[in-house]
Amino acid sequence: MSSAAPRWKTALTKGLEKSKMAVFQLATVDPNGSPHVRSCINREFIAPQNFPSLPLLVSTTDTRTPKVTQILSQTRVETVFWVEGTMEQYRISGFASVIPAPSHALYHHFESSRGPAFAALKDEGFDWEAKRREVFDYLGGHMRATWCRPIPGSEPESGHVDAKAWPESVCKLGEARTDQEKEHVDTAIERFALLVIDPEEVDYVELGVIPNQRTTFRRTEDGWVEKAVVP
Amino acid sequence: MSSAAPRWKTALTKGLEKSKMAVFQLATVDPNGSPHVRSCINREFIAPQNFPSLPLLVSTTDTRTPKVTQILSQTRVETVFWVEGTMEQYRISGFASVIPAPSHALYHHFESSRGPAFAALKDEGFDWEAKRREVFDYLGGHMRATWCRPIPGSEPESGHVDAKAWPESVCKLGEARTDQEKEHVDTAIERFALLVIDPEEVDYVELGVIPNQRTTFRRTEDGWVEKAVVP
Repeated sequence: MSSAAPRWKTALTKGLEKSKMAVFQLATVDPNGSPHVRSCINREFIAPQNFPSLPLLVSTTDTRTPKVTQILSQTRVETVFWVEGTMEQYRISGFASVIPAPSHALYHHFESSRGPAFAALKDEGFDWEAKRREVFDYLGGHMRATWCRPIPGSEPESGHVDAKAWPESVCKLGEARTDQEKEHVDTAIERFALLVIDPEEVDYVELGVIPNQRTTFRRTEDGWVEKAVVP
Repeated sequence: MSSAAPRWKTALTKGLEKSKMAVFQLATVDPNGSPHVRSCINREFIAPQNFPSLPLLVSTTDTRTPKVTQILSQTRVETVFWVEGTMEQYRISGFASVIPAPSHALYHHFESSRGPAFAALKDEGFDWEAKRREVFDYLGGHMRATWCRPIPGSEPESGHVDAKAWPESVCKLGEARTDQEKEHVDTAIERFALLVIDPEEVDYVELGVIPNQRTTFRRTEDGWVEKAVVP
């Protein structure tokens, strides 16, 4: 494996620098074979120290959302980043893993996550639970409060959405003072999960240059194989 | 059916007004059950004159792209619009139709397109071929030239991408003067297709307001049923 970060990752990171948020769209398939897609935020890239050529995309989710069920039934996913400033598109296909609390019923699915990046991180002693808690604390209090709401997308039992019944903000881990604050943070961290995407193929289209360029990258045992293709 | 445009369509149109381009992401499933997603541009909404409650999304494509094969094998698709300015997300699921030239081998698939919007447009005598030609002429010459390239995403037979071998610009229908210009425009219009999405369900999330709001819309025989759900 090459010891350098793949060219698509360097270009994507540069393209995203001017964006407020690293928004991408994640496509999944449900058990009926219907596609679904929604916007997510890439919080960071994580790569094994010895293998920068194997970056993972790290986003967050709620274990109660339909996309988690979809990913568990079909781990193959595709994401797309549209970088408006540079008129570039990155389509990244690979495998998704949901990393919940170790105490969560879905945790055993994560333990079976495969692929060279996860294997290398395991060898290096990477602590996913510490990373999960670090990302949780990095989010804003308002965002953390979303994990204390009823199931996202559900109809409230009362028939109407009563946002006042939900906490507006949830504090960081270890910063809860009252019993209620502690209850909220415990509830939120139990439902909070990392959503990690392990890229296998990347389709990089540059529409900001004339003539347009398009490059495909495929991960192999010998590193990323790059090919210029018809845009 | 209500005779008004659905609220999600009015809100989306307003949200997109400040955007340079109405970019959305289209998720499809391939015959192996893997999801795919890419950015598209919504060129316009088309609704039957008598049924503004049934708007269709109109985008464009090349009949030679993988997404066309994917749509023919699974017409169920989902799209997402992320409107950065207003922090709104619109997820629109429904059915996709590819509308190529009437002379094209894939045209019979379009003829079997179902749903109330297509039926109402047919009753009103809507001319899809005239619309296809109108949209083709509306695009820029550089964009029209993309339909004269080898198959998008393919590796050139020569082993390297020779953009100089392809036309830089293709003129509008009826404006070709030389034999070569005529050949290019004929080639482009034969491969050019409309990609039309018939929405059935919409999930509208408003993250720009506190508390956040989320509304689902489902099309029924009696119009769009709107429900407030947990964001």
